[in-house]
Amino acid sequence: MSSENTVFIGRKPILNYCTAVLEVLRNSDTVVMKARGAAISTAVDVAEVTRSRFLSDLKVDLIEIGTEELTTEEGRLRNVSTIKIVMNNIK
Amino acid sequence: MSSENTVFIGRKPILNYCTAVLEVLRNSDTVVMKARGAAISTAVDVAEVTRSRFLSDLKVDLIEIGTEELTTEEGRLRNVSTIKIVMNNIK
Repeated sequence: MSSENTVFIGRKPILNYCTAVLEVLRNSDTVVMKARGAAISTAVDVAEVTRSRFLSDLKVDLIEIGTEELTTEEGRLRNVSTIKIVMNNIK
Repeated sequence: MSSENTVFIGRKPILNYCTAVLEVLRNSDTVVMKARGAAISTAVDVAEVTRSRFLSDLKVDLIEIGTEELTTEEGRLRNVSTIKIVMNNIK
């Protein structure tokens, strides 16, 4: 899976990421959404809103959860949860 | 899947839900975690922390995302994203 197909979900409004997802799907059948921490909920929102408002053929292909180790500004290690949502638009 | 195996994830601390998940797994091989909105991130935290700290044999069996319609206090309809994480402890 090339990284060109990946949309990293952060703190921007949901529709910004929906636009990015639709942009990926102009050139690919598959899009990968990745998020960490509190943005995990936003990633699910982006997947659901893109499907319900823009592309009803979009289907969830795979959802994976995991843990990453982050170094905080104070130099401490902290675990953060991650999600990866793969969706495809194959009719 | 009986509702006895389901833990609804909300705004309490993560470890409260880890305890509830472990309690379910005393009598069952399978646990279902459900969450809506911002609690979706917490549900992923609960799954990851339970696996990494308490039960390394715990495996994700299924993750589903969806949308529910809620009525707000003002009587308006609002969509909220949902997640369902099914984990099992079969060795």
